[in-house]
Amino acid sequence: MNLVWPDTAIEILLICVLALLARGLLKRLIKRWIERTAKRVEEPGGGLSSRAAAMIAQAGGLSVERQAHRTRTVGTMLGSLVDASLALIVVFMVLQALGVNIAPALASAGIGGIAIGFGAQSLVKDVISGLFLMMEDQFGVGDHVDIGTLNGTVQSLGLRATRIQDSNGEIWYVRNGEIVTLGNRTQGWSNANISIPVAYSEDPRQVISLLTEVCRGLAEEPEWAEQILEPPKVLGMSELAAGQANYLIVVKCPGDQQWAVEREIRARVMTAFQDAGIKAPLTLPAGPAS
Amino acid sequence: MNLVWPDTAIEILLICVLALLARGLLKRLIKRWIERTAKRVEEPGGGLSSRAAAMIAQAGGLSVERQAHRTRTVGTMLGSLVDASLALIVVFMVLQALGVNIAPALASAGIGGIAIGFGAQSLVKDVISGLFLMMEDQFGVGDHVDIGTLNGTVQSLGLRATRIQDSNGEIWYVRNGEIVTLGNRTQGWSNANISIPVAYSEDPRQVISLLTEVCRGLAEEPEWAEQILEPPKVLGMSELAAGQANYLIVVKCPGDQQWAVEREIRARVMTAFQDAGIKAPLTLPAGPAS
Amino acid sequence: MNLVWPDTAIEILLICVLALLARGLLKRLIKRWIERTAKRVEEPGGGLSSRAAAMIAQAGGLSVERQAHRTRTVGTMLGSLVDASLALIVVFMVLQALGVNIAPALASAGIGGIAIGFGAQSLVKDVISGLFLMMEDQFGVGDHVDIGTLNGTVQSLGLRATRIQDSNGEIWYVRNGEIVTLGNRTQGWSNANISIPVAYSEDPRQVISLLTEVCRGLAEEPEWAEQILEPPKVLGMSELAAGQANYLIVVKCPGDQQWAVEREIRARVMTAFQDAGIKAPLTLPAGPAS
Amino acid sequence: MNLVWPDTAIEILLICVLALLARGLLKRLIKRWIERTAKRVEEPGGGLSSRAAAMIAQAGGLSVERQAHRTRTVGTMLGSLVDASLALIVVFMVLQALGVNIAPALASAGIGGIAIGFGAQSLVKDVISGLFLMMEDQFGVGDHVDIGTLNGTVQSLGLRATRIQDSNGEIWYVRNGEIVTLGNRTQGWSNANISIPVAYSEDPRQVISLLTEVCRGLAEEPEWAEQILEPPKVLGMSELAAGQANYLIVVKCPGDQQWAVEREIRARVMTAFQDAGIKAPLTLPAGPAS
Amino acid sequence: MNLVWPDTAIEILLICVLALLARGLLKRLIKRWIERTAKRVEEPGGGLSSRAAAMIAQAGGLSVERQAHRTRTVGTMLGSLVDASLALIVVFMVLQALGVNIAPALASAGIGGIAIGFGAQSLVKDVISGLFLMMEDQFGVGDHVDIGTLNGTVQSLGLRATRIQDSNGEIWYVRNGEIVTLGNRTQGWSNANISIPVAYSEDPRQVISLLTEVCRGLAEEPEWAEQILEPPKVLGMSELAAGQANYLIVVKCPGDQQWAVEREIRARVMTAFQDAGIKAPLTLPAGPAS
Amino acid sequence: MNLVWPDTAIEILLICVLALLARGLLKRLIKRWIERTAKRVEEPGGGLSSRAAAMIAQAGGLSVERQAHRTRTVGTMLGSLVDASLALIVVFMVLQALGVNIAPALASAGIGGIAIGFGAQSLVKDVISGLFLMMEDQFGVGDHVDIGTLNGTVQSLGLRATRIQDSNGEIWYVRNGEIVTLGNRTQGWSNANISIPVAYSEDPRQVISLLTEVCRGLAEEPEWAEQILEPPKVLGMSELAAGQANYLIVVKCPGDQQWAVEREIRARVMTAFQDAGIKAPLTLPAGPAS
Amino acid sequence: MNLVWPDTAIEILLICVLALLARGLLKRLIKRWIERTAKRVEEPGGGLSSRAAAMIAQAGGLSVERQAHRTRTVGTMLGSLVDASLALIVVFMVLQALGVNIAPALASAGIGGIAIGFGAQSLVKDVISGLFLMMEDQFGVGDHVDIGTLNGTVQSLGLRATRIQDSNGEIWYVRNGEIVTLGNRTQGWSNANISIPVAYSEDPRQVISLLTEVCRGLAEEPEWAEQILEPPKVLGMSELAAGQANYLIVVKCPGDQQWAVEREIRARVMTAFQDAGIKAPLTLPAGPAS
Repeated sequence: MNLVWPDTAIEILLICVLALLARGLLKRLIKRWIERTAKRVEEPGGGLSSRAAAMIAQAGGLSVERQAHRTRTVGTMLGSLVDASLALIVVFMVLQALGVNIAPALASAGIGGIAIGFGAQSLVKDVISGLFLMMEDQFGVGDHVDIGTLNGTVQSLGLRATRIQDSNGEIWYVRNGEIVTLGNRTQGWSNANISIPVAYSEDPRQVISLLTEVCRGLAEEPEWAEQILEPPKVLGMSELAAGQANYLIVVKCPGDQQWAVEREIRARVMTAFQDAGIKAPLTLPAGPAS
Repeated sequence: MNLVWPDTAIEILLICVLALLARGLLKRLIKRWIERTAKRVEEPGGGLSSRAAAMIAQAGGLSVERQAHRTRTVGTMLGSLVDASLALIVVFMVLQALGVNIAPALASAGIGGIAIGFGAQSLVKDVISGLFLMMEDQFGVGDHVDIGTLNGTVQSLGLRATRIQDSNGEIWYVRNGEIVTLGNRTQGWSNANISIPVAYSEDPRQVISLLTEVCRGLAEEPEWAEQILEPPKVLGMSELAAGQANYLIVVKCPGDQQWAVEREIRARVMTAFQDAGIKAPLTLPAGPAS
Repeated sequence: MNLVWPDTAIEILLICVLALLARGLLKRLIKRWIERTAKRVEEPGGGLSSRAAAMIAQAGGLSVERQAHRTRTVGTMLGSLVDASLALIVVFMVLQALGVNIAPALASAGIGGIAIGFGAQSLVKDVISGLFLMMEDQFGVGDHVDIGTLNGTVQSLGLRATRIQDSNGEIWYVRNGEIVTLGNRTQGWSNANISIPVAYSEDPRQVISLLTEVCRGLAEEPEWAEQILEPPKVLGMSELAAGQANYLIVVKCPGDQQWAVEREIRARVMTAFQDAGIKAPLTLPAGPAS
Repeated sequence: MNLVWPDTAIEILLICVLALLARGLLKRLIKRWIERTAKRVEEPGGGLSSRAAAMIAQAGGLSVERQAHRTRTVGTMLGSLVDASLALIVVFMVLQALGVNIAPALASAGIGGIAIGFGAQSLVKDVISGLFLMMEDQFGVGDHVDIGTLNGTVQSLGLRATRIQDSNGEIWYVRNGEIVTLGNRTQGWSNANISIPVAYSEDPRQVISLLTEVCRGLAEEPEWAEQILEPPKVLGMSELAAGQANYLIVVKCPGDQQWAVEREIRARVMTAFQDAGIKAPLTLPAGPAS
Repeated sequence: MNLVWPDTAIEILLICVLALLARGLLKRLIKRWIERTAKRVEEPGGGLSSRAAAMIAQAGGLSVERQAHRTRTVGTMLGSLVDASLALIVVFMVLQALGVNIAPALASAGIGGIAIGFGAQSLVKDVISGLFLMMEDQFGVGDHVDIGTLNGTVQSLGLRATRIQDSNGEIWYVRNGEIVTLGNRTQGWSNANISIPVAYSEDPRQVISLLTEVCRGLAEEPEWAEQILEPPKVLGMSELAAGQANYLIVVKCPGDQQWAVEREIRARVMTAFQDAGIKAPLTLPAGPAS
Repeated sequence: MNLVWPDTAIEILLICVLALLARGLLKRLIKRWIERTAKRVEEPGGGLSSRAAAMIAQAGGLSVERQAHRTRTVGTMLGSLVDASLALIVVFMVLQALGVNIAPALASAGIGGIAIGFGAQSLVKDVISGLFLMMEDQFGVGDHVDIGTLNGTVQSLGLRATRIQDSNGEIWYVRNGEIVTLGNRTQGWSNANISIPVAYSEDPRQVISLLTEVCRGLAEEPEWAEQILEPPKVLGMSELAAGQANYLIVVKCPGDQQWAVEREIRARVMTAFQDAGIKAPLTLPAGPAS
Repeated sequence: MNLVWPDTAIEILLICVLALLARGLLKRLIKRWIERTAKRVEEPGGGLSSRAAAMIAQAGGLSVERQAHRTRTVGTMLGSLVDASLALIVVFMVLQALGVNIAPALASAGIGGIAIGFGAQSLVKDVISGLFLMMEDQFGVGDHVDIGTLNGTVQSLGLRATRIQDSNGEIWYVRNGEIVTLGNRTQGWSNANISIPVAYSEDPRQVISLLTEVCRGLAEEPEWAEQILEPPKVLGMSELAAGQANYLIVVKCPGDQQWAVEREIRARVMTAFQDAGIKAPLTLPAGPAS
């Protein structure tokens, strides 16, 4: 406590000026970083027809304002973090300049830091992941997402945990740090993949032409055309097993809306096969089958 | 121990004033943090009919008072933690100011801290997780939850472990840190998914109209209407395999109450099929089947 | 070793007084903590009939004295730990006050602490888990528990490991830190779940009434009534597969005593079906089956 | 090296006296700890008949002398460890008192300690686990043990690894730290569980009485009585599947000796069924089966 | 703050000169490292025919300019990192030379570093992995990649996460640190592997000659020749099971374009077999099959 | 650099003497440790007949000289390690005594140690494991070993990795630290376990006597007797499934030589069954089977 | 900065001399280590016939020059590492001797080291693994390797990652640290294992003699003899299941060239069986089979 006033005063002044400079610098860095990462990917569903692109563009418009809201949130939060850290450092340095021995306080904090650090690492990990999930706009409230074995609609997106409602209505809480690989069905489109089993003895050319006809018919009905982004593709014989052959139909639909199209095509194909006399695998006249 | 009384006195005074200031600040921060996180999500089951919303709103009312109780608990606990930490620091700093060498005590504490830190990290993790499970109101006593391979009714919710009773009556103790992904059936609704297998040769249109009729009949009976949140949906042919076709019915029910509805619809569909002569897959007159 | 006697004496005195104060404080904290955690959950099997509650209450009475024994053990152990730690610190501080340089000893201990800390973390983890298993009364000697892939009767409960005998008589040693999720069948009840397969062509109403009759008959016999906590429930058709339908019966029995009830109901149902002419799935007169 | 002889001498003396005191204390603590943990669990196979208890008591007698041998080994080893640690500390402290700067040596040791600590943690873990496996007498040479996917007879038990010979004669080396959950068949008993498949159409009462008769006959023959600890139990119909019913017989045998009993009962039951005309599942006169 | 001006000035000058030298050195090292790692592997699909090589060479050309873009990005980023680090060090050293005590600031940073280090390790890991994925040119935007259970087309490649669209249109975000083993179908070629099941009784020589003929026919049609890099190979009987034999055809196609070829060959083989009377396994005239 | 020559000289002398003493002590400790661990387990295959013991004893003789070679290798290596460590410490301490400030070098080494320690822990782990694999003589070149999913003949045994050739000829490199549980077939014996399926209707007594006869015949032929350590055991009916019964034969053979015996017994049993008219399961005259 | 010139000069000189000595020593140690590890295992495929050995010897010759190239690469790299480390230390020590306070720089480096160390450990691990993969010559460019679930031909071998092309043409990048167990098919040989299913009723002696004849015929044709290292072995009946028996043929082929041999033998055996009238399992005249 042997304070030499002029010296001490100069030192404290120097500390404060430096802290202010550092604060300004860090704030500007944060702002620039947010601006750079905030630029959204322009083409959300590359390689689509113009109509499909238009359909997804609307979602993009919504996403932009969602993004603005988010960057503001993240910026404010990081700003407070910088203020708190600098305040802590300035207090410690001024105390030191005044001659108060702060080693004990620091030591306690160090021990506490280690003890908690071991246990809290998953908490810190969750928050960092949440920050990046927000910054990178991987998903927003209302999106349909795939997270590991769980998929559903995002209800809220917090820094530590995300709330998702699955298709059965159950509410799920997922820690952000556990979201390693995330699929977003709303940002892209969804393919309806329909596999049609046919008896081995049927002629592949006839089956394919029949399937093509059914698909064209469906795509031309206005009711269904809204749910189909591109003309359905009949890909041909995808599998050849004992006693049966499988044909694959693929239809590009808007995100997470392929289920009704799949069911409709399946029902129409079955009717068409019954009309044309194309046999299903193993439905022999008088033989049992498992 | 060369105490220079005025100096030392000033230093101790300064330490105490600072500690009190820090305490006040931290308490206010905790209070504000609890208040902010305590605001419950307003719309618990977004996208429901008004009747269903009303049914869940009641649960919401209960949850609010549950929340109040919890935030008080958490606030008290965090407050004691702050008091204890500050007391420890003040004691160390006053001792230092008085000239007692506390390095040995700190060193021992440091070694102990490392040794225990390695082993106790799962304990710290459990407590932090428990704190957040409470703060985020992920579940309460009486809720039906899904935790990994285990699901059941919450009996009590501690800081370290949660007590759950599964549907067979067994009592389970789960450490909070192990609850990575948590599903809550009581906060949402539950879908009854009924898959009806039919012979390949039946006409899909007829089957669907029959199923629709059965479902409408059920939903109109007052006894069952209470257990159904929205009119049942017959989704059509969901699967087309060798020799059989599957039709899917989905009924939205209150959380965890879908089982009776599922069984009832299944029994009614079977009776209706027998009346209408719709064949089940593979029930041929005199052939064996596996 | 430049000892200034009055100063040194005062310092040593101060150290000892402080240590005694700390010891008193810690002991009181431990006592209060044990008392708080020792309060057992009052209602062990919530939602049972009065008779069932009475049956479990007896076990509760036993458990209370088991608890008293345990808290005494834990309290004594923690007390010795506090004494040892404080003694170590006092010795180091007095040595320091006397001018003996103890840095080398501390350094060695530090190195040793790190080296062993890495390897011994699972040991520390086992002991901490054991402490909490005891404090939270998750299970006691004689309880039937489920631990991961292993289940059996607890033979002894140590701080590091638990000894369990499975139903085949094999003795198992499980490290407490590996007990992540623990199920206790003795603290709750056990459901007997009996699934009855019936031919697809049988009338569901008739099957259910027959099953209900069999169950009521069983529950009324005094010999079996002791092993059934609540009247058996016939839940109806739980599954509808190709060629067969399954009916589910659920009976609430005291913990781990459901096996005999399951077997008895199964045998009685089979006899009743044979009398009533209800066909089992796939037992056709002259057809092969797999 | 400014040695002030009287002071230095006193310091060195003080160090040595302290070290001797610490050594005595630690040795007594070790001895007491070994004595406490060495007390073997008295009742090895609780709930057995007196004859069975007598059979296992012999093994217990052997185990006591095995235990004595072990505690001596462990005590000696821990004692040397204490001596080595104290010697190291005394050397460092005397050097310091003599004024030799030992910081470099300590620093090197610290770096080495960290570098090796990371890599050697599984070695330390193995040794600690081995120490506790010995102290807790989880198994001895000649016991039949289950360790994860491996089971066999223990050939030798080292501090780092255990040598086991499986039933096919292969020698296995298992690191002690990898032994998480250990089953010992020699310390308990072994149940012979025999499942008997019978055709769906047979009367359960008749089947059970026949099985009971076969079991009673076996248990009365002196040749087999030695291998059976308690009268065999016919538990009734344990499973009801399409076309068949399963009956369960349980026989309590001495540890790991149930195999011959299982095979004998199976052969006798088959003969008895052929005599009584009870049909096996699916052995229809002229039908194929898979 | 006892500043001795000439000395301090010299020290500060020395620090600055040194920092500039270090900066120059590091920048040159980075440049040289980038140049060395940027040299792309010359022969992308070793062992191809000249036509196939030419087809892939085009892709290589594109890749070179992609590479140039990338190395510039990485170089700039690493350069900024070096500048920031050196600036931080210079600031600290000048402050120290001026006599400002910076220990508190460093200590805070240290504690913060540890606390965050534990939680942020997966972030650092992601960025380092991203850096190397870029430097090693493992994949680029538009490539078709395999990452664990996920495969699809790369949409964008960030330092922390990669955006991939799978074949169903779903957008996936994968953290770079989780990409352990990565397969790139665009950089290589893709084999169409077609397995043809034939009845056990058919002559292998005849089957193989027929398959060879079908393949030669396909490879000669200009429409298909573009999608085939090398003449198809009929490898012969690859499997011999009960009742059937499998023949394997392998066709080398450009990356990820084998699907149409597979389907076409399968359809042609089936037609050819029907013409030649070669029987499929198990299509017996009047027998049931499972 | 204020060297006070006499003092410094004494200090350096003291350092050197101490180092030499420490070296001598450590070398003797290593030697004693090697000698103690080198004593091989005497009875390699406990409980064998004298002939079998003699056969394995030869291998034991070989193993002893293999062991001598190894302990020499390990001793030399550990000795060099001790020399290097002591040299490093002495250099640091002499430099310190001479007044050269070595803190920077130490600090660099410390940072490097941490940085590498994290990454190299699996390397250190591999070497430590290799050391112990050698010391404990778990396997030698030419032994047939089981390591997790891999088994084969050891080609060479290094400190970091082991080279194994599997039975298909592929060369495998396994890091020693990954060898957690190791099985050695050469040190023990190998059982040939032959399971014989028989039709449900056959008499168990007749089947067993027939099998016994076949086994006795084989064991008496000199050609096969060399490959059988003990008379084969026919264990009786090991399994009773729908339509078939399985009988188990066990033959004790020298390590990894059971395959030919298994095949021979299987062929002879089949011939004997055909002669005796014992039916295999499910070979009905005109019925299909799967 | 109180420089005492003669003293400082001597200290700097001493530092430089020491550094040069250390450099010389380390370089020589590296050289000797490389030379020792570079000695390739002499007998690559122990136990082969002379012709097979000659075939593999050629590969060995290639490998030696490959090895020379590699050791040069590794040596240069390690040398630069030593130079860089020593330069860093010398700079720090000279600065210290000159009186420049380098603590801040070191502290920053320490914090950075910790922060990056956590995240970069997998990078360091990859490089260390890569170094050892090279030194131990586990594989070279062009070898066919097995790495976990992936196998293919090595395209390039870097310090951090290895580039492999699988048999379908896809390019894979594998981080070296993830290569735990590596199989090399090129360094050894490959067995063709052909399993021949035969009807249960056929005579084993006849089947074996027929198989032996087919194998001898193949091995005598010059076209195939080049692809077979040793005469094929017919091992006899390897499996005995319900209704069928399996016979095993093993042929030793050069590394990864067994596929064509397998297919040829399978086709020839089928033809021979058809000629000799040996029945395949389950090809009954008029019965269905699954």
